[in-house]
Amino acid sequence: MGLFITFEGGEGCGKSYQSKKLSAWLSKAGYGVVLTYEPGGTVLGNELRKLLKKKNDTPIEPLVELMLFNASRAQLVSEVIRPALDQGNIVICDRFADSTTVYQGYARGLDMTVVEQINAVAMQNIRPDLTILLDMPSDAGLKRKGTGIYDRFENEEPEFHERVRQGFLDLIKKEKDRWLIIDGTLSRTEIATYIRRKVESLLSKRQ
Amino acid sequence: MGLFITFEGGEGCGKSYQSKKLSAWLSKAGYGVVLTYEPGGTVLGNELRKLLKKKNDTPIEPLVELMLFNASRAQLVSEVIRPALDQGNIVICDRFADSTTVYQGYARGLDMTVVEQINAVAMQNIRPDLTILLDMPSDAGLKRKGTGIYDRFENEEPEFHERVRQGFLDLIKKEKDRWLIIDGTLSRTEIATYIRRKVESLLSKRQ
Repeated sequence: MGLFITFEGGEGCGKSYQSKKLSAWLSKAGYGVVLTYEPGGTVLGNELRKLLKKKNDTPIEPLVELMLFNASRAQLVSEVIRPALDQGNIVICDRFADSTTVYQGYARGLDMTVVEQINAVAMQNIRPDLTILLDMPSDAGLKRKGTGIYDRFENEEPEFHERVRQGFLDLIKKEKDRWLIIDGTLSRTEIATYIRRKVESLLSKRQ
Repeated sequence: MGLFITFEGGEGCGKSYQSKKLSAWLSKAGYGVVLTYEPGGTVLGNELRKLLKKKNDTPIEPLVELMLFNASRAQLVSEVIRPALDQGNIVICDRFADSTTVYQGYARGLDMTVVEQINAVAMQNIRPDLTILLDMPSDAGLKRKGTGIYDRFENEEPEFHERVRQGFLDLIKKEKDRWLIIDGTLSRTEIATYIRRKVESLLSKRQ
């Protein structure tokens, strides 16, 4: 029986760094670990990632974003996540369905019932055992990203990113047991320690 | 108030030819006509069309096909179909949601409730006033396509194409008023005449 851990948070919150650190730590401890990410993680998913992130002459409709993120997700679940869990691995995913609920639901304002319906289809009954939110003020995360070239999402107005943050905080209230919330402004080492402690506790309960 | 006409049928049934002929005929008669197609019809949709049609090393999951066709559809409805109908045009679309019901539902075997649910989200309350099915034995259509390079769908086994044909015939039974079924083995001129007669009758009722 595998374990499915997802990382969530706004832009520049440190998810990618921490998911890699956790993966390396678990591998070193002898666990089978599969580290992946959304959108992407498969050949098709990476094509969709490019379409979703690049700036276009014609804007992509929010409904279309919803479908494309879930297309990438359905392929990732079938091709990577489900087989890895079935083989007893720990799967770590940098973003998953909660990102869609928050970005397309809370931040873009799509009908939440529709968002949940289509997320559920793509997830195919695969749900995270633990979701780690790295929470921080949205402007702090964007500052970390620096003044490089922003993608379509990073490029959104400050209010969008604030709705993302509040969306995550709201989601947590509905399903507290699944979430670990960590202050993303702490040092990388402190954050990694909190994450390890939680994952160790989960793993010890499963043995 | 616009008029929305869709063409449906298996591979090689002559939809593309007849949709162009109808469009040209209506334009000549003085109507505002927008001719489009699925998947595609928008910049984003055409990118998705390429992904859906090309042969890949890893197969695309049926659920992912469902999401991608509907992503293309949602963008086409928002960007092209709805604005054109709002301006009182006749919109002709070479394939629409019925193709997804038939190809991903009947032929790929996805849960029909899920297919209808996601189609409905992408359609955003836009439904065809008339759908023209060019029906013919599935092997006859493929033969017409010749021995060129087949795309992912054309390349499916004969049983797949037969399920497509039967799927369309089954759909018609449920909603007879919307459909015009024409024998696709008739001559192009005969088919065009049947189509014009039906469209003329629809237009005269609307005046």
